[in-house]
Amino acid sequence: MAPAPIETDAVIVGAGPVGLFQVFELGLLEIKAHVIDSLAYPGGQPVELYPDKPIYDIPAIPVCTGRQLTDALLKQIKPFGATFHLGQTVTTVRRQDDGRFFVETGKGTQFLAKTIFIAAGVGAFEPRTLKVDGLDRFDGTQLFYRVGNPADFAGRHLVIVGGGDSALDWALNFAAEGSNRAASVTLIHRRDVLQAAPASVARMRELCDAREMRFIVGQVTGYEEKDGRLTGAKVTGPDGVTRVVPLDMLLVFFGLSPKLGLIADWSLEIERKQLVVDTEKFSTSIPGIFAVGDINTYPGKKKLILSGFHECALAAFGAAPIIFPEKGKIPLQYTTTSTRLHKVLGVESPVFD
Amino acid sequence: MAPAPIETDAVIVGAGPVGLFQVFELGLLEIKAHVIDSLAYPGGQPVELYPDKPIYDIPAIPVCTGRQLTDALLKQIKPFGATFHLGQTVTTVRRQDDGRFFVETGKGTQFLAKTIFIAAGVGAFEPRTLKVDGLDRFDGTQLFYRVGNPADFAGRHLVIVGGGDSALDWALNFAAEGSNRAASVTLIHRRDVLQAAPASVARMRELCDAREMRFIVGQVTGYEEKDGRLTGAKVTGPDGVTRVVPLDMLLVFFGLSPKLGLIADWSLEIERKQLVVDTEKFSTSIPGIFAVGDINTYPGKKKLILSGFHECALAAFGAAPIIFPEKGKIPLQYTTTSTRLHKVLGVESPVFD
Repeated sequence: MAPAPIETDAVIVGAGPVGLFQVFELGLLEIKAHVIDSLAYPGGQPVELYPDKPIYDIPAIPVCTGRQLTDALLKQIKPFGATFHLGQTVTTVRRQDDGRFFVETGKGTQFLAKTIFIAAGVGAFEPRTLKVDGLDRFDGTQLFYRVGNPADFAGRHLVIVGGGDSALDWALNFAAEGSNRAASVTLIHRRDVLQAAPASVARMRELCDAREMRFIVGQVTGYEEKDGRLTGAKVTGPDGVTRVVPLDMLLVFFGLSPKLGLIADWSLEIERKQLVVDTEKFSTSIPGIFAVGDINTYPGKKKLILSGFHECALAAFGAAPIIFPEKGKIPLQYTTTSTRLHKVLGVESPVFD
Repeated sequence: MAPAPIETDAVIVGAGPVGLFQVFELGLLEIKAHVIDSLAYPGGQPVELYPDKPIYDIPAIPVCTGRQLTDALLKQIKPFGATFHLGQTVTTVRRQDDGRFFVETGKGTQFLAKTIFIAAGVGAFEPRTLKVDGLDRFDGTQLFYRVGNPADFAGRHLVIVGGGDSALDWALNFAAEGSNRAASVTLIHRRDVLQAAPASVARMRELCDAREMRFIVGQVTGYEEKDGRLTGAKVTGPDGVTRVVPLDMLLVFFGLSPKLGLIADWSLEIERKQLVVDTEKFSTSIPGIFAVGDINTYPGKKKLILSGFHECALAAFGAAPIIFPEKGKIPLQYTTTSTRLHKVLGVESPVFD
């Protein structure tokens, strides 16, 4: 028998910076949330796409990386004890007779939620795959679209495919001296022009000159295997000649493919793939479903993380009357002075020292 | 002959957190700004009212004080070289025939500005004064409404008036052992109930029991002087009896009195003392004048610093077509990836290391 659905005040779809801050703004109003994300870890786009690149426009943080931003937000929302359901996407959303939403994920997790906050950024996104027939059966054993633990790749013959920052950064990382150094690193990109940071490209050229890595212009068009193991990539160059590059592990960095997925089927009002919201509560066209961050649109909308933060605050106040219909208008209180907020934040009221 | 007015793209009225971040958002669009504030230093309400109290709801900053928030924002806007005009309030705003605004402050500083951003919080605000006839002539010599340099008060007989956190915090500070310890500290409040943090009140009671400070319930109704110097405060208790408390310095902390001042006379649309704005550009009813932060209102408005940050971003994009009519639509760029933004921020494009 399936377990009973989780009954909750709020389900947040998306654990990027805006989804995480939605936990905070709901928490201040004493609303507990469950958070669903397609990725296996919180942080969303900034962590997936540019974990170590500086971001300069988070207010009052002159510079931080995507990873630091996520860590800070996770620390900030810790008092609110949100439950994360990672590595799963929402497959069903259905309004029940009692007004609540039945939500189910691809992993079968079920919720009965009074409100839903869609903070899904560009949608559930997934790595663009290398389209070579039959290759996908090595996915997770010798074919990888992301580096989980770098130590797993140390001492191996690596072929890395891609021309952006992720491909370059990992190629340089595994070619560099250190505990994770590979036995060999071959970078493959379809053109001689790379889209990565100029300094990374220059460093790659240096390492190639020093024969500490190789760069081949071409496309992976096939593979070789022996005894069920992937042994080489067939690379076709611009001259039409195909050669085999031997390998232990094949790493592919083609970027992420946004996938609005089921959200497109929720019969919400959509404009150019964005969810249309009002600017008072950031409610979608379905009362009880809010949309915050890059996935929404309204006059003047800019896809900025700082705008998503503001949207979370107003959406939380917009949701409170649905969750607590008996409470009436929720007054705004300040974290600096409110004893109630100090209690929910788990901090002592300020003490002079 | 008066100097020519300063010609500028943008004048920001208010150097609180939101006014400071307006400098940043304009700077990203390569718009230089002049900032006017009635206080003698940037930071606005958080620095004036609670410089050392924790704020918990700035996104991705689990905790900071008003002072830390201001310092971080000043660091963040440094690349943009805004010019500050402090300790002055705007006295005149007049639209010229060429569409620009003539702006003048009480100190006679004049501007010709293409756009104005009102980030004035609750308005120019000033300390509430102690209303005792004739006492004001000691203002700045023996009567103070704020502590500039604590060392100026060390070793003196201090009378501190007020029942809030500022009064308590300073009373405890000057009564404590340390280089700034006063010769004596007497705290005066009209009631026996104080509005300060309970821990501060408890500490005050302890120090009184240990005779390291005094607390008197009463109101200052007059003063004594000798040879042009203030020598004592006449304090009338709840029993109607008046006694004289000798002193070297009189410190009064009655909080700040908001003073919308001239902004109320700018013929801008006002609703309950707030400037009405749209949520697309945060424009007031006068094109070219924007309002951001606590001073504006719109459906759903919450007086949160994080909302002011969002408003700054959209106001900057709203102002750009007025400042650069020839440029057409300004595209949104990201500080993580845009080489142009790295240049205006004065940072190198990210380098792999």
